[in-house]
Amino acid sequence: MALAGAMLLPALVDSAVGNPDWQVFAASAAVTFFFGTALVLMSRGGTEAISIRAGFVLTTSSWIVVAAFAALPMTFSDLGFNYTDAFFEAMSGITTTGSTVMTGLDNAPPGILLWRALLQWLGGVGFIVVAVAILPKLQVAGMQLFQTEFSDPSGKVAPRVAQLATSIGSIYLGATFLCMVAYWAAGMSGFDAIAHAMTTIATGGFSTSDASVGHFNSASIEWLAVLFMMVGSLPFLLLWTVVRGRPLNLFRDTQVQWFVGIVFISVAVVALWQWLSNDQTPGLALRESAFNVTSIITGTGYATADFWQWGSFPGIIFLVFMFIGGCAGSTSCSVKIFRYQVLYSALRAQLARLMRPHAVFIPHFNGRPIPDSATDSVFTFFFLFLLLFAVLTFGLAALGLDFVTAVSSAATAIANVGPGLGDVVGPGGTFANIPDPAKWMMAAGMLLGRLEIFTVLILFSPAFWKN
Amino acid sequence: MALAGAMLLPALVDSAVGNPDWQVFAASAAVTFFFGTALVLMSRGGTEAISIRAGFVLTTSSWIVVAAFAALPMTFSDLGFNYTDAFFEAMSGITTTGSTVMTGLDNAPPGILLWRALLQWLGGVGFIVVAVAILPKLQVAGMQLFQTEFSDPSGKVAPRVAQLATSIGSIYLGATFLCMVAYWAAGMSGFDAIAHAMTTIATGGFSTSDASVGHFNSASIEWLAVLFMMVGSLPFLLLWTVVRGRPLNLFRDTQVQWFVGIVFISVAVVALWQWLSNDQTPGLALRESAFNVTSIITGTGYATADFWQWGSFPGIIFLVFMFIGGCAGSTSCSVKIFRYQVLYSALRAQLARLMRPHAVFIPHFNGRPIPDSATDSVFTFFFLFLLLFAVLTFGLAALGLDFVTAVSSAATAIANVGPGLGDVVGPGGTFANIPDPAKWMMAAGMLLGRLEIFTVLILFSPAFWKN
Repeated sequence: MALAGAMLLPALVDSAVGNPDWQVFAASAAVTFFFGTALVLMSRGGTEAISIRAGFVLTTSSWIVVAAFAALPMTFSDLGFNYTDAFFEAMSGITTTGSTVMTGLDNAPPGILLWRALLQWLGGVGFIVVAVAILPKLQVAGMQLFQTEFSDPSGKVAPRVAQLATSIGSIYLGATFLCMVAYWAAGMSGFDAIAHAMTTIATGGFSTSDASVGHFNSASIEWLAVLFMMVGSLPFLLLWTVVRGRPLNLFRDTQVQWFVGIVFISVAVVALWQWLSNDQTPGLALRESAFNVTSIITGTGYATADFWQWGSFPGIIFLVFMFIGGCAGSTSCSVKIFRYQVLYSALRAQLARLMRPHAVFIPHFNGRPIPDSATDSVFTFFFLFLLLFAVLTFGLAALGLDFVTAVSSAATAIANVGPGLGDVVGPGGTFANIPDPAKWMMAAGMLLGRLEIFTVLILFSPAFWKN
Repeated sequence: MALAGAMLLPALVDSAVGNPDWQVFAASAAVTFFFGTALVLMSRGGTEAISIRAGFVLTTSSWIVVAAFAALPMTFSDLGFNYTDAFFEAMSGITTTGSTVMTGLDNAPPGILLWRALLQWLGGVGFIVVAVAILPKLQVAGMQLFQTEFSDPSGKVAPRVAQLATSIGSIYLGATFLCMVAYWAAGMSGFDAIAHAMTTIATGGFSTSDASVGHFNSASIEWLAVLFMMVGSLPFLLLWTVVRGRPLNLFRDTQVQWFVGIVFISVAVVALWQWLSNDQTPGLALRESAFNVTSIITGTGYATADFWQWGSFPGIIFLVFMFIGGCAGSTSCSVKIFRYQVLYSALRAQLARLMRPHAVFIPHFNGRPIPDSATDSVFTFFFLFLLLFAVLTFGLAALGLDFVTAVSSAATAIANVGPGLGDVVGPGGTFANIPDPAKWMMAAGMLLGRLEIFTVLILFSPAFWKN
């Protein structure tokens, strides 16, 4: 029902500019509202706390249901989308991926452009709430490390969700507003500023132009985007404490330190390469590197250059960047910084143990010992992430995609980045021309990647449905 | 000193056919013997059991020293090798990798061809002894799982090594002899049969022809190679118990079951693809798939076809096959089957734990519970393996290698497979034309991959050298 409400916004915009698409959004809103009401009526009376099992089912099914209905306006409009295209675009939206099958964005009706941006914005805040309130309880993929930050002694999932959602929602709204004003002051139109602010904070990456942010050709807009993509990748609960008067918390958090450090080093390496090997001026090298590297590491997916043309070294680097991601509790996806911290800690403990087999070494995260269960959880997540990457690559290659297209499409889907690499699906292309089954595979990959794999995968375990 | 002795074999062969290279081998033998004697005299009197720390140092340094001296005959001969080429070829030999910088093998003098085969054969049996007698004690990369199989209550490394080496050596010699006779009966010349038997059992992959085993164009030779490559990838201690009258042990071992199952499925998938998508006859599809897939999975590296030309799906599959490997305690390299079993067990335990957070689930291997330390060890190995793969790929790409060449060269080096993918370093090419620094990087990757990474990496830890 909330989604139906959201559909009224593009309907209003389109009717204001006299675009007939407003009817499409209104009809989609009616259909969505009808099904939403039916679901509410069917499940009346269930006010008890949500069990762990229901947590898994609700999280996964809500993403699928939202994507299925969010695709309606795009199917009904005259974009020439079949339902596959529309579902791909909608899933890419609410998972904040940013891969697109649309071309001609510069001349597209504003309703559709707003709808794509809204989907990413809602998907972004929706995932933060899930990551902060539900995943730690479910002990998914090492997220139990964040349980103490907002621990609820009753052990139930529901009670504090509303309170958390309010805090996070206000930070999210505030950040988006600041970003919008900044973009507008730097020269974007009001509409572009709103649309880009929503997809920047959500680290989503949908744009209102085929040339993405490169369209504006403005250094100040690009540096602002760098700043706000990084804000979108920070832990929002931490941002909440910062706003509440404890700004130093941000710099004391080791996850933030690692994240900022990794981005700085990565930007420097690519900028140096562009300067020394590709004969760019240092200024342009730094600007292009900062924007595109931050965009890929945070999983946003904007571009101002076709970095695939920069050579095989940057090409491989950008592919690996897709596997980094931002901080836990942000809109960012992929493996995420804290998991690399856990892996690094475990690696150090392992090396120490090799020298003294009978001593005990306990890995730490943010100054606290990491429980064995969390380490195992992170390791299995990492293994599953790569396994899923391999399987998805196989599938895409079997459908006829070439080596680079298959590898990079699989990576960009499960890491929820946006563009792939190469001539077909790189920053200069779209996913419009890949076969329909490949679009469904990628949409499944996006869902798995966004929900930390386990949340979806567990539904396929027979034991889950027993009893 | 043993290496100097081994050099006399090619010297004898060359002098028998009147090739002046016999002097090269004799001179190299003299130099090697001199240094070997000096080392023995320097370390006289040390008869105590080997400490864990010495175990690491000796294992790594022996591989480096042997490669450094084994390169001598190739530098001195008139192949036109600089020391970089010779060291690359020697390291590729004793790590049983099989990547080569030589062309014109068909017309090369027999001494050099025999020397390359001998290096792989000695490297293969050398590693089995290390894997069976030393790595479990050092608790490297999950190898502690195999500690009980030949446990020594005294806790020392040395005592049972001689006995183990004898058992393994006799199995190794017997398998090589059987393989040689079979090759010879199937139509190889005596010399080719000896050279290929040595590099088959060692899962090494050096051949006496630029066209590799494809040169013989014989189905029976190819199927024999498939059989003996698989033998070389089985646990040799298990083969020893089989020979001692317990053949059923082979089929009861879950590692062997997984290995054979994975090879069968992989061969079937690629054969089906070749039959259905590339319009090959079923017979040829099966034969080519069986040979090349087994060659890559076991890390041997022979080829009868340039599978890179088969399309992006087989290309990606072959790249992933490089990360499989054979069983622990064999001549095979890469991640190895038992680690995937541990990862799979841990993954199942993880999924079970998600549903019942307070229950305890313990992963098992071959019917026994896996200690936490072994799981951690396997996970960190897997992570390091991929990290090393990424770092090596970066390095090679920075030196100017294209995307596919850089990725596949890095994979083939750390997984000790042999050929890469693509036009430059694929089964149809060699590594002769990559830059010298790239050859050194790959040689380092081969050493790390062969010695299970940790054995080498720990020497770079400052704590290792303290006190």
